[in-house]
Amino acid sequence: MARPKPISGFPEFLPAGRFVETMVLRTVTETFELHGFAPIETRAVEPLDQLARKGEIDKEIYVVRRLHAADGEPDELGLHFDLTVPFARYVLENAGHLAFPFRRYQVQKVWRGERPQEGRYREFTQADIDIVGQGNLASHHDVEIPLVALDVFEKLHRDMGLPPVSLRVNNRKLLEGFYRGLGIEETAPVLQRVDKYDKIGPAAVRDLLTDELGLTAEQAAKCVALAGISATDESFVDDVLGLGVEDELLSNGLEELSALVRVARRSVPDRVVADLKIARGLDYYTGTVYETLLVGSEKLGSVASGGRYDSLATDGKTTFPGVGYSFGITRILAPLIGKGLLAANRSVPSAVLVAVDNEDTREDAIAVAAAIRARGIAVEVAPKADKFGKQIRYAERRGIPFVWFGSDSVKDIRSGEQVTADPATWEPPAEDRAPGVMPG
Amino acid sequence: MARPKPISGFPEFLPAGRFVETMVLRTVTETFELHGFAPIETRAVEPLDQLARKGEIDKEIYVVRRLHAADGEPDELGLHFDLTVPFARYVLENAGHLAFPFRRYQVQKVWRGERPQEGRYREFTQADIDIVGQGNLASHHDVEIPLVALDVFEKLHRDMGLPPVSLRVNNRKLLEGFYRGLGIEETAPVLQRVDKYDKIGPAAVRDLLTDELGLTAEQAAKCVALAGISATDESFVDDVLGLGVEDELLSNGLEELSALVRVARRSVPDRVVADLKIARGLDYYTGTVYETLLVGSEKLGSVASGGRYDSLATDGKTTFPGVGYSFGITRILAPLIGKGLLAANRSVPSAVLVAVDNEDTREDAIAVAAAIRARGIAVEVAPKADKFGKQIRYAERRGIPFVWFGSDSVKDIRSGEQVTADPATWEPPAEDRAPGVMPG
Repeated sequence: MARPKPISGFPEFLPAGRFVETMVLRTVTETFELHGFAPIETRAVEPLDQLARKGEIDKEIYVVRRLHAADGEPDELGLHFDLTVPFARYVLENAGHLAFPFRRYQVQKVWRGERPQEGRYREFTQADIDIVGQGNLASHHDVEIPLVALDVFEKLHRDMGLPPVSLRVNNRKLLEGFYRGLGIEETAPVLQRVDKYDKIGPAAVRDLLTDELGLTAEQAAKCVALAGISATDESFVDDVLGLGVEDELLSNGLEELSALVRVARRSVPDRVVADLKIARGLDYYTGTVYETLLVGSEKLGSVASGGRYDSLATDGKTTFPGVGYSFGITRILAPLIGKGLLAANRSVPSAVLVAVDNEDTREDAIAVAAAIRARGIAVEVAPKADKFGKQIRYAERRGIPFVWFGSDSVKDIRSGEQVTADPATWEPPAEDRAPGVMPG
Repeated sequence: MARPKPISGFPEFLPAGRFVETMVLRTVTETFELHGFAPIETRAVEPLDQLARKGEIDKEIYVVRRLHAADGEPDELGLHFDLTVPFARYVLENAGHLAFPFRRYQVQKVWRGERPQEGRYREFTQADIDIVGQGNLASHHDVEIPLVALDVFEKLHRDMGLPPVSLRVNNRKLLEGFYRGLGIEETAPVLQRVDKYDKIGPAAVRDLLTDELGLTAEQAAKCVALAGISATDESFVDDVLGLGVEDELLSNGLEELSALVRVARRSVPDRVVADLKIARGLDYYTGTVYETLLVGSEKLGSVASGGRYDSLATDGKTTFPGVGYSFGITRILAPLIGKGLLAANRSVPSAVLVAVDNEDTREDAIAVAAAIRARGIAVEVAPKADKFGKQIRYAERRGIPFVWFGSDSVKDIRSGEQVTADPATWEPPAEDRAPGVMPG
């Protein structure tokens, strides 16, 4: 078999990269649990008719069928392209067994048959949290969800050297209420134009609003002024009120967004920004929306997004509203790991290599390894009886920090220091127990 | 949307079941790492021609294609049906970047388009470890691999109440050498008949060997006698030698198998059984083979199997031999979780519910929760301001052991004991920190 080539859009890592990914996933899932989210996992496939219900996405679905399916046997299953469609189905299927509000997290691969390009993948890992109510869900959960995201990203920044984030938040009620207060009936086309703010600038947006939508110059100017407002504290409320527009939905949106900014600011100052030009996703979400930029890699776009939706699912009688956040794990990690900017400082978990000087003593080496391992220290036994120097080089090549010789001697191969030790009690320094992250 | 129904062969769990699965997977992967195995993960798909190379399995492959693939666009990808084919490809693809012997673990879903039936799944999780050499791999690794399996299963038994295992081992060299020493040229047909030993009994096997294969009565009697040998210590060697057959390959196999039994016995007595009637898998494996029975659920068959193979992959110049063990995680857990024999003792990770007596104090409750959470204690804030009794019932329904009231009071809702405490220092008992396993 010739050397196989990677398949475009399906990223894979060497062990030192996969270590980083597993460390990140551990931080992510542990933090989700600390905030009371319970784990679920859904099957990779859903009925094709369920996946295809959202028109815009149906080109990207991967259909799954048995290689030897009978002629004419219909395609019935497809790989999920997100974790929301499966979660909606799971909630309906198990509603009788779940306690609402139901807080779940889910970390799984998803698949999209897109043409692969920089930053786009055909297979990638998402980590989702959602809080879903039965019939209704209080608005304070919109404040709770970004606190979880902040907790996750602060830990990844502090402990693993990932870039810090800027969490941008907005609220659809605020924007819609504002537009209505200005006398604009059709708000969706306004949102679509405002969405171009970053790309084409405020003046061009104003022109689109007057020329394409027939807004008055004053209406257009106020829409653009609103989009220009941003703040890391509640001061944005006065800026909005200063524009002199009054509307009940607007007030409601302002209240929700200011509560979010106030509480998030208590948790981590200046990471959360009320950014009133955010419009993307506002046709799906019905209230608060979240986007997340990596500081210094803003051009990657939002690496984690979410918001409030009125109906995750409905069985005809009961509707399940919710609020959630979806973390693009592969989107965040694959560029950093792929470019070598993020890697583990060793390619194996082992903190210790137990040397073997001749094959007759291998069983003693296995016993030494077991004694060390019993205290949760990762250890492997040298695969070959060999000289001192070769054992050291074996460890070096893999980044294993310690080599154990005989029954009672351990050497730190970085410093060269060798000490007498008992395999039943010896401890490596805490930072050497498991692989750490090596900044690129 | 009407209430959806499960899809046969694609098991899913409620949170209390998924907790058990995540606990098991954590034990499994941590133990793999303690033994020096590095994590990798491969894409879900492989080129169809690679998957279809093993003739017998090609009916079970799921083909993956884009929903809107052009007419005549060929099927090129399929979902992997095990983790061995992807691993072989990964080793060839990355050989230049890996250090050999390469020790890896891999825990992923696999898919088989089989007709679903009791104990068979179309989607299931496997956990594989392998040690792979470049060109060659010493036989002592055959001893090492079952020690990892024992360590995993002993922890699952001790910490989570899974049934104990009986690890059955055999060696193809031992059997082949024995048959050759008896003057039998074609050994594969003998293995196939011996494989029926458990089902049809020794007398019927003997008849098959004479009637179908033309063995002499003495040859057949010795083959059956060999298959009848089993022991938890090295005594099986004398039993085999007592049959009076001599052959170099037989000696080699006896040596390998007795080393395995001797070392495994040092680790955990009586769990590993040399069982010379094991023949399944011997046409794939070339030396040691492993099977694993759950004591009390032997009819499930082997829940974890593996062995030594001469060629995982080859690039034409270099061959990569290896030895591995594959754990059928879903096969072990799905029946136990599905029947309620194994569940977590709560349906949420939270150890504490912070009560909210009126909505004006919610932000204080969030601050209390953050202070408790900072020490790694899972906590959630009550979703609704409510009376004392309702908050308790909310916690009870989810199995949350503690409810926090105001800024300085915590109640164990099981005992009813309420104490004054500081959210910055209070600790729950260690066993209440995370969900535990509740025996069914």
